[in-house]
This record gives sequence, structure tokens and C-alpha cells, in this order.
Amino acid sequence: MTERETEAAIRFGILGCATIARKVSRAIRLAPNARLVGVASRTLEKARRFASENGFPEDAHVYGSYEELLQDPEVDAVYIPLPTSLHRRWVAEAARSGKHVLVEKPVALNAGELQEMLAICEEKGVQFMDGTMWMHHPRTAKMREIISDASLFGNVKWVDSAFSFTGNDDFLENDIRVKPDLDALGALGDAGWYCIRSILWAADYELPKTVTATRGSVSRNPAGVLLSCGSSLQWDDGRVATFHCSFDANLTMNLTVAGSRGTLILHDFIVPFQENSSKFSLSSNTRLAEMALGWHPFPVEHHVHTDLPQEACMVSEFARLVRSIKDSGSKPDQRWPDITKKTQLVIDAVIASIDKGFETVSL
Amino acid sequence: MTERETEAAIRFGILGCATIARKVSRAIRLAPNARLVGVASRTLEKARRFASENGFPEDAHVYGSYEELLQDPEVDAVYIPLPTSLHRRWVAEAARSGKHVLVEKPVALNAGELQEMLAICEEKGVQFMDGTMWMHHPRTAKMREIISDASLFGNVKWVDSAFSFTGNDDFLENDIRVKPDLDALGALGDAGWYCIRSILWAADYELPKTVTATRGSVSRNPAGVLLSCGSSLQWDDGRVATFHCSFDANLTMNLTVAGSRGTLILHDFIVPFQENSSKFSLSSNTRLAEMALGWHPFPVEHHVHTDLPQEACMVSEFARLVRSIKDSGSKPDQRWPDITKKTQLVIDAVIASIDKGFETVSL
Repeated sequence: MTERETEAAIRFGILGCATIARKVSRAIRLAPNARLVGVASRTLEKARRFASENGFPEDAHVYGSYEELLQDPEVDAVYIPLPTSLHRRWVAEAARSGKHVLVEKPVALNAGELQEMLAICEEKGVQFMDGTMWMHHPRTAKMREIISDASLFGNVKWVDSAFSFTGNDDFLENDIRVKPDLDALGALGDAGWYCIRSILWAADYELPKTVTATRGSVSRNPAGVLLSCGSSLQWDDGRVATFHCSFDANLTMNLTVAGSRGTLILHDFIVPFQENSSKFSLSSNTRLAEMALGWHPFPVEHHVHTDLPQEACMVSEFARLVRSIKDSGSKPDQRWPDITKKTQLVIDAVIASIDKGFETVSL
Repeated sequence: MTERETEAAIRFGILGCATIARKVSRAIRLAPNARLVGVASRTLEKARRFASENGFPEDAHVYGSYEELLQDPEVDAVYIPLPTSLHRRWVAEAARSGKHVLVEKPVALNAGELQEMLAICEEKGVQFMDGTMWMHHPRTAKMREIISDASLFGNVKWVDSAFSFTGNDDFLENDIRVKPDLDALGALGDAGWYCIRSILWAADYELPKTVTATRGSVSRNPAGVLLSCGSSLQWDDGRVATFHCSFDANLTMNLTVAGSRGTLILHDFIVPFQENSSKFSLSSNTRLAEMALGWHPFPVEHHVHTDLPQEACMVSEFARLVRSIKDSGSKPDQRWPDITKKTQLVIDAVIASIDKGFETVSL
């Protein structure tokens, strides 16, 4: 790395040693415009171990408290992998310390909390972005091109998205995602977040008019945390979307976007089967063949290669926005916070619909 | 064909010259235990043309009315591709004439009508089967094996099924499937029938407890016929299923069955992309790889070859059941009529839920 590149690189600190922080610390190391400079934990020992196990540079800082990291002037930006219930506090403290904020999803317990976080980031002029990695895969950009192409795809008519995985006994007993005081949104926050995001993505971020949770889709653990749920989303122009998320079925990550002329399908939209090579299927202007003996044309697999894994693309995009603020003194980009907000509004609507016995809720 | 095989073959007549009858007449020619002996239309000329254009044998009979075909003692069984609103009359007349009945889907306008048809078939001792072809593809049997395997698949948790195709202007104006006096169930009968069947198949034919049509999924033509709709289905044990069907999105035929240990996915469940070779994808005991950088193991594509296309398998299965009745004087098999009945009950429940403003309807 040249000196100029090193100077241009955004310096990241990590607030906490969650499992997902291993993946993101690697992503920070891989992103060409980012530099991994430190990690904080509630004990110095844990921070030291995390740094040494995750390839931090020799000169990385380790801190025995989150506050210390936030006070370090050599940190430009923080990545916050803490449980959702701690985001409100630490996003605010990071912003007040002038640190740009990349925060894990689900971002907030509700839209009110999120609004507080976004307001303080805006006030302090720091960039906000949530950690929804798949948004930054070049495959996603390629798919956007396709669904925007009227002759290939027409208009979006319906979307279906699903994310399930089987939580084992340890997960269902001990994971933060089943704890009401840590990640109270359970499967909806952890898995449904992605489904909702994919639906909003397909709808070009137009919020649905109404949301109706799916009767029979909801299960909870004894503490009341959602282990599964689903919902349908409705737009005034007739578009409709459905999703299902759960901790009780084998790993499944389906996204189907059906347009008047095309159908886009993939089965690994959140985490690609493989890091560097990914694919999706596109059917376009498809008919049944003569006498309905088959299809014409067959769906086509599109392959998208990426040298940088999607989480490094995410870090890189975030660092680019931070760089631009630092260089030009401009205001933070509002596109990513807006998308976070819309995702959270739908989350809230799903919860409201479930709480009202699967009534339809307006947004 | 030896004389013995010829004698054993069930002799089929076709009641009407619908487009789908071209595919099924070919299937009757292909099925080793079936013989195509005639076709009836409302005019002799149409019947003659159909026979000559569809490879009927030289000595095939042609009839200028459905009654004449039903009176022919050389016909064992009829295939009825007529519009749904005519099924009630012609299934009954066929049964009264002692003809076994293979009838196109959707079978009836409602479960009451279907019950009449099934009762008369039972009374007259004739076999009844509906024309849901994909049930008879060897791929379907292979998939059944897999979802029944507890170590590979676990228990079914959720199912999603979709069937859309884009009706062109001519279809939306003139096709029988958009005419309230011919196929009044519209997209639900034509496309949703398959989705509901696939869900029942995945549920091992256990009827759901409740059905809730999807708000926002419904569109109708000016005559009130459904052009799109969707629904969720609920079982007491927590299983849930969703489907969407429409005439307004590019050809899409998705089926996902998610179990506690496995996920089965295919995108051509109704009509395979290709006649003789088909596939489905199975993920089993799938986890994210170390650091969630990919999947382990990858989903596996299972390929199933069939020499006979699925519609010929259907004819062959139907002919086998008819043969058994003729040979042993046994009663008709009740399995297929039962599956038809369950499909129709769910259709009725979806209609009821739509009519009640997307209320949940008990079965």
C-alpha cells in the first residue's frame, strides 16, 4: 500500500467481539480504502485475544472498554456488532465522539429508537450505514440492472423472500437472538430483516401501503421471542410480496422477483454459496413450448465474480462515503439511512400486525 | 404390440378438442397400456380434423357429439378436457355410460359439484382421476422419498408455491380461463390448483386447519374472474404454507419445501423445463461455513430421467387402475379422488376467504 493510500484509508475500530465481528474485521482488512486499527471489549483480555485471533495488525489498539475506543482520535469509524438492545446507546455515543457508524442489523428495536440514532448521526455529521452485506455484492447491482430493464423484466408484480436456518439446542437456549433483553426481535430481526430488505430492494424502496402478518406463521420461545413469522406486503398498484423467516427450518435463502416479462431467482441472496463466484437465474419472456411439452426459452444462469467478498464491498462503500465527508466537509449520505429506516418501519408494522392478531396495518 | 398387450390396453376416447387435448392424446398414444380410439366434438368436421392432426390411428372413431362417443362400447375410458363449467354434466354422463373418467383440472366450480361427480363415479364403479400431470412424474416420487426421509429432511416446516404466467391480450380477452361462464375460477383454478396441490402433496395430504387469502394479491377482470390471488394455509402443528398464482407475471413455477433438516426446491414443478430430463435441488443439514463465508454443504442437484413424459405416466397410471377394475371387478381406487377433493376444498376456502375480505376460513 502506498503512503497516499494508507492516508486515504478510513481507520476502523470495532466495538465488541461478537462472532460476526470476525467476518467484518476480515472485511475491513480486505477493503482497499479501510484500515483496521483497534478493537474494544468489556475486558482488555478479550479484546487482545480477538485482535490476535483475527489478524489485526501488530500496531492495532486494544481497549478494555468501548468508551476508550470512542475517545481514540486515531479512529475514524466504528463497526458496532453489539446486541440490538445496546445499539441505541452506543450509536449515540459513537456519533457524539464524531465516529462514523457502521452498525449490525437489526439496527433498532423499533423505528422510534432508530430515528433517535439517525438524528444524532445527522446532527454530528457522521455517516450511518447498517451491516446488510448482500446489498453491496456486485451481483445485487447486476440484478438491479436487470429488473430495471423494461424489455427483459417489465414491471415487478410479486416478490417472495425467505430466510430460515435451524437453530440447534445451544442456539435456541443461549444465543443473543433468542434473548428478550438482547435481540428482542428474534427471527424477525435476525432473518426477517433480510427478507424485508430484499422486498424493499425489489420495490425500488417504495414502502408498501399495508402489511399483514401471516396467520399460523408465528412461533415464540417461552420468553416470548419470535422464532418464526411471515408477512405479506401490499402496494396500491397491485404489487404484493410475501416473506417467511424462521429458526426452525434448514438453511434457506430464497428470493424470487416476478415481473410482467421476467423472473429473477436466487437461493443464496444473503450469503452467497461461495465467496467469489455467485449466480442468479433469469427467465425472460418465457413461454411454454409447443403443446406445453417444456419451456422456451430456458432460464439462464448469470454468474457474477467478485474479487472482494460482499462484506468487504460494504466496508469499502462505507469508507468511500466517510472519505468524501472528511475530504469535502459534505453532509453524510442519506440513501443508506433511509433504506435502514424503511426496513425498520416494515419490521414495526409486522410486529404491530402480529400483536393485533394478524390484522392489516397501514404504513 | 402383441395381441395380448393390445387387449390389455385401455381404450380412450376424448371428449372435446381443447388445446390441452393435443398433449393428452399424444400421452395416450405413448402410454404402453392405453390406446387412443376416438375423439368427439360438437361437429364431426372438428373431430375429424383433430384426429388427423394429432396422430390418431387410421381406425380411430370420430363422433359429431359427445353422446355418441359415450355410447360406443369400444371405449373404456374418457378424457374430458372441456371447460370446468361443463364437467358436472359430462363426468356424470360418462359415468352413467360406464366410462372411466380422466378429467382436466380445475375439476369443479366448487366442492359440492365435485362431490356429485365423485358420488356418481363411485356408484357406477368407474375410476375417477384429475389431470394433474406432475403428480405422475417419477421426479415427484423421488422427491416424496426424500421428504419422507427423517435424517435427510426432518419434518416439513413451511412450503411456498407459485405459478404465474403472462397472459397476452388474446388470452386475457378470449381464453376460456377468463370467462365467468366457462372457467369461473380463473387464475385460482388454472394456476392456483397446482400450487394448492403441491402444498397438499408436501403436507402428505393433510388438509390445513385454516386458509387465509393474501390481502393485496387479488385482481380480477371486468367480468369478475380472478387474474391473480394468493393465500396462506395453516396447520395446528405449526406448519404453514403460502402460494401465489397469476396471469400477470412471467412464467414461474416455484416450489420450496423447507423441513427441519432439508430444503427441496424446484422451478418447473408443473411442466418440467424438458420432457425427459428433470431436476430438483436438495439442501440437507446445511450450515453456514466457518465465519459465515459460504455454505456447507452446497445444495445438490438431483436429476431424474423419464422415458415417458409425465402426462403419459398419468395416463398409464389411470389405465392401470382401470385395468385392475376390469380384470378383478374391484372397486375404483379412492386415493386420487380423495386428493382431488382436498384440492377443491382448499380452492373453496380461498374463495370464501377472499369473499369475506381476507378473513381466515376454517376447513
